[in-house]
Amino acid sequence: MQRYFIEMEYKGTNYHGWQIQPNAVTVQSSLEKALSTICREKILVTGAGRTDSGVHASYFVAHFDSVSTTLDDSGFLQHLNGFLDKDIVIYSINKVKENAHARFDAFSRTYRYYINQNKNPFNQEISWFLRGDLDIDKMNEVSCLLIGTHDFTSFSKLHTDVKTNDCTVDFAHWEKKGDSLIFTVRANRFLRNMVRAIVGTVILVGRNKIDKEDMIKILKIKDRSSAGMSVPPQGLFLADIRYPDNVFIKSIREKN
Amino acid sequence: MQRYFIEMEYKGTNYHGWQIQPNAVTVQSSLEKALSTICREKILVTGAGRTDSGVHASYFVAHFDSVSTTLDDSGFLQHLNGFLDKDIVIYSINKVKENAHARFDAFSRTYRYYINQNKNPFNQEISWFLRGDLDIDKMNEVSCLLIGTHDFTSFSKLHTDVKTNDCTVDFAHWEKKGDSLIFTVRANRFLRNMVRAIVGTVILVGRNKIDKEDMIKILKIKDRSSAGMSVPPQGLFLADIRYPDNVFIKSIREKN
Repeated sequence: MQRYFIEMEYKGTNYHGWQIQPNAVTVQSSLEKALSTICREKILVTGAGRTDSGVHASYFVAHFDSVSTTLDDSGFLQHLNGFLDKDIVIYSINKVKENAHARFDAFSRTYRYYINQNKNPFNQEISWFLRGDLDIDKMNEVSCLLIGTHDFTSFSKLHTDVKTNDCTVDFAHWEKKGDSLIFTVRANRFLRNMVRAIVGTVILVGRNKIDKEDMIKILKIKDRSSAGMSVPPQGLFLADIRYPDNVFIKSIREKN
Repeated sequence: MQRYFIEMEYKGTNYHGWQIQPNAVTVQSSLEKALSTICREKILVTGAGRTDSGVHASYFVAHFDSVSTTLDDSGFLQHLNGFLDKDIVIYSINKVKENAHARFDAFSRTYRYYINQNKNPFNQEISWFLRGDLDIDKMNEVSCLLIGTHDFTSFSKLHTDVKTNDCTVDFAHWEKKGDSLIFTVRANRFLRNMVRAIVGTVILVGRNKIDKEDMIKILKIKDRSSAGMSVPPQGLFLADIRYPDNVFIKSIREKN
């Protein structure tokens, strides 16, 4: 068996998230179906993470095993992209060591959340339209509080099956680009719904509804109900996933 | 009665074009419904042109008359945008002279056609995905042949109710921007389906299926069947409409 890493991106609008589930079209199920059909063998795909329904990935990595050792040629890539729906694009298929793992080997993930402050007909599905003034300086000030290793229970969906809610965030910053306000956050791992709960809470700071002291308390109290609402999925992108060089060397795509 | 000019944009994906028609949702019908409801009077809207089903407008102008003389304030604009669907955005509402006409006074229209040469999940609805090499130099060479006043019957849907098929084109150019190939064409008027038929024909030149001499013949022969296929609507944007300064002075939006 040969293990392969796939680099890909997808628009999540028409999918019930990444993860396979009964009676729903997901990115994972679409990809497994395409690979299994083309390769004429049952192929299971393991993703680097899970994205929720309606969330996008401008960069995503998954692995799979196949009896075929020639799936990393450009003809197969083109065939696979032709077979897949328009909203899933595969950029590369790379041979990796048999124990390389798309999820466990990844040491960092980067998410971006896009807010549009002016109504724009062309990006309704890939950003969140939010009217009103936001104090971006204050939002950056409280976002700095996230950096370091913290228990992020206050920003996580309850009852998830993880052993610890500790995450190490090493980047969290808001920037204004044209009409868009973009939040970029990088961590070793993320809890379910974490980025959307963080954004919903930081926006309360930007609107002067809560302040820096409240944010410190919210982090400490480890109670989801203390934080702000979760913002809608369409603004969220999984934007980067990093691996050690010895796991995954060949990447055709320059990522930031 | 006060006449107003509206500056707007819309994503055409979910509309059966601009023009009102029975049993179909169009941009014109949506706008008339919104204005009539908010103003509590029957309001009819006249557009600067018609876009076909699935075609977008990154700039569009329409006019309407109302008994109210205060519709050009920012509160009304915000109310109207809140009432309209997400894929129609109004940028300005300006008072104009009572005989100003969105369609008849416009002296030029600019269309853009977007081709994406790499599969991209995020712009499927706003560009046409076309694989394969295209010779952009040759495409620009034959696009220059369009400049001037010509009978564009070869690039028009037959049996339209216009008196003449003469159009005066003063700009027609292809440019490469990142993954995109963009065709910009400006003329005093356009026939039905004209831009999409031109693009479909110029692409044949870019693929070396026909040459410059063929293009000259196609223009001269005035027969739609001599030209190439019409390309799909999702890549087409009405991008600019120009008026004399004395018709329409106040524009909040810098257009190129």
